Amino acid sequence: EDCKKQEAANLVDPYSTDPPRHPALIVNSLKPFNAEPPPGLLTDSYITPSALFFTRNHLPVPQVDPNKYRLKIEGLPSGTMSLTLDTLKSNFPKHTVIATIQCAGNRRSDMSKVKPVKGLNWGFAAIGNATWSGARLRDVLYHCGFGPEVAAKARHVQFEGLDCDVTGMPYGVSIPLNKALSEEGDVLLAYEMNGEELPADHGYPVRVIVPGVAGARNVKWLGKVVISEVESECHWQQNDYKGFSPGTNWDTVDYKSAPAIQELPVQSAITQPVDGSLVDRRMEEVNVKGYAWSGGGREVVRVDVSVDGGKTWHVAKLRDNGEDEFPAPSPQPGRAWAWKLWEIAIPLPEGAEALEVVCKAVDSSYNTQPDSVPPIWNLRGVLCNAWHRVKVKVN
Amino acid sequence: EDCKKQEAANLVDPYSTDPPRHPALIVNSLKPFNAEPPPGLLTDSYITPSALFFTRNHLPVPQVDPNKYRLKIEGLPSGTMSLTLDTLKSNFPKHTVIATIQCAGNRRSDMSKVKPVKGLNWGFAAIGNATWSGARLRDVLYHCGFGPEVAAKARHVQFEGLDCDVTGMPYGVSIPLNKALSEEGDVLLAYEMNGEELPADHGYPVRVIVPGVAGARNVKWLGKVVISEVESECHWQQNDYKGFSPGTNWDTVDYKSAPAIQELPVQSAITQPVDGSLVDRRMEEVNVKGYAWSGGGREVVRVDVSVDGGKTWHVAKLRDNGEDEFPAPSPQPGRAWAWKLWEIAIPLPEGAEALEVVCKAVDSSYNTQPDSVPPIWNLRGVLCNAWHRVKVKVN
Ligand SMILES: [Mo]
Ligand SMILES: [Mo]
Repeated sequence: EDCKKQEAANLVDPYSTDPPRHPALIVNSLKPFNAEPPPGLLTDSYITPSALFFTRNHLPVPQVDPNKYRLKIEGLPSGTMSLTLDTLKSNFPKHTVIATIQCAGNRRSDMSKVKPVKGLNWGFAAIGNATWSGARLRDVLYHCGFGPEVAAKARHVQFEGLDCDVTGMPYGVSIPLNKALSEEGDVLLAYEMNGEELPADHGYPVRVIVPGVAGARNVKWLGKVVISEVESECHWQQNDYKGFSPGTNWDTVDYKSAPAIQELPVQSAITQPVDGSLVDRRMEEVNVKGYAWSGGGREVVRVDVSVDGGKTWHVAKLRDNGEDEFPAPSPQPGRAWAWKLWEIAIPLPEGAEALEVVCKAVDSSYNTQPDSVPPIWNLRGVLCNAWHRVKVKVN
Repeated sequence: EDCKKQEAANLVDPYSTDPPRHPALIVNSLKPFNAEPPPGLLTDSYITPSALFFTRNHLPVPQVDPNKYRLKIEGLPSGTMSLTLDTLKSNFPKHTVIATIQCAGNRRSDMSKVKPVKGLNWGFAAIGNATWSGARLRDVLYHCGFGPEVAAKARHVQFEGLDCDVTGMPYGVSIPLNKALSEEGDVLLAYEMNGEELPADHGYPVRVIVPGVAGARNVKWLGKVVISEVESECHWQQNDYKGFSPGTNWDTVDYKSAPAIQELPVQSAITQPVDGSLVDRRMEEVNVKGYAWSGGGREVVRVDVSVDGGKTWHVAKLRDNGEDEFPAPSPQPGRAWAWKLWEIAIPLPEGAEALEVVCKAVDSSYNTQPDSVPPIWNLRGVLCNAWHRVKVKVN
């Protein structure tokens, strides 16, 4: 009914009540709003400012009155529970994590260069790192009556947003129950981003944060949580956000044959130098900067950088939340939710007139990025994590 | 002292009491014994027969009298505990897992073709899949007094084998404590392999099974478990079994700069056709078979196979422990410890006189294998998981 009300209000343009946005954002789609920051800004700060954090909306931004907001919890023995925003804030310990969120479609533009794909043409900044605070989902579930009786059968936690399409169907996805219940999973019902209320574009008043998992599962404007034996039946769980073989096309694709994307693979990209830019030969060195991250709580342990297209490699210096002399302590294995920024100065190869700068990251499971895009090409253009390549001229 | 006794007994040849081995094994080193099965046998059965399971010994096989065997547990408030084999078998629930174990050096021979590396020249059969039964390590630790007091400081579980070098130093490594404690980690003090007592080469009477983690951490002939704030100080934890950048050489390597290998990256290999063999053009198809596995409990969700060196790809049929009509249910996310066997019949490309058959696997985090070996080359030749390639002639 929330949806119907909003529908009525916005009959002319359901996007008319979308919030104002930062002018620096590069817009891929206005309605729904999808935008990423200029990539160079990403590595200016370890914590991405909220106003510059990429926005991936599937539907209009819902108008939520915090006083009328209710989070519904279904699938537990007590029937449907309904929690106010104040209850979420006051009755559960406030837990904070620094977590990177990446869209499964980040770097899609590198994939569409190989062969056309369906989807928003993201550059490589559909990723950001923020501080998120809220109640732990597990605390809320146990409070609402989760126990052995439910555990015996349930396998998934479904989420529904308050954002709806014109027919009133809300955005919906699910995650595995064991991720939600694990003390080490750090799944939050977040009401703060970077120490402030969630911005409208990032899920005000409550968003699920599922660290290590694709952005699509981090449901914004959270309206409902359902404990279930099955995955969400929604489009975004069943018929989108899945990976396929490069040989699979729109005639042969069977969405049932692939698992929903949850944890993302290891990723990295170069934010400096910019593709097509000039490097001054007199500098003798080229400064290279970027980000690196892996899903599933796997920590990035090394970033290799090449200026000769991948023939020879140099190890970049990694930067985390700490200062140089006081690096942050390594998180517990499997709980490294935040990216690493990295940089390195590489001597210009003698006589080189052009450089192909390449980066690849290694995570704590020693997973690496594939060399090239064509063998990971897929019709939806998701999961693009091949080496990132940037070409520059030396003069 | 166990070590000293054995030392005395074997002064002439510490390997003289090693057990007999299956004659089909391909021996990489006799003393210590290191051998793998012919790769074609690997895909004959989902469960690898114990006698054909690859053996990676670092030292002589210790002679252990099961009646005198004691497992020592250190680092808990009660001081050193000592458990008999009978206690392990009788006082703790017997837990069974099907888990693949892979040597971190599997496929090293593919790496040494690029540039020489230090280590045993493993083919691609230093991997096997077996049923393991024993007490859960977590049950034993809680029984021995593990609690919040220890948890506040401890971070690692060290293991020592009863196998020793000539100076009496035992084999030793460690794993992260949270892996050992997690109910979903399935770490076992195993006393059975494939339903029988552990064979001498595989750790009789007790071996740690750390599913999803490199073979080197699955300590055989387990003598001691130490709960600690620090990793094992042993050679095999500190100065071996670590991954480095291809640019790192023996002059520049700093073992402190890389994490110890624990979870392994996604892997696959082709067991049929055999490299250099002939394919009959009249067959019109080539049958391709192999194995695929990933570390960290990540399930293999797809294997792509190419017969044109990676230009076009076909999706293989995966086989697990179930029958075709009754596939085994998917394990809980993060608990897929066992490999998948796969096969596919691919039409021979018209007019092709030679094929380059290639496979690559995708795991449930959508991690993939890198395209080529040189960019993952490292001086110890570990973690070789680039696409596996086999060349055949068509006639
Ligand atoms: Mo996304
Ligand atoms: Mo190994």
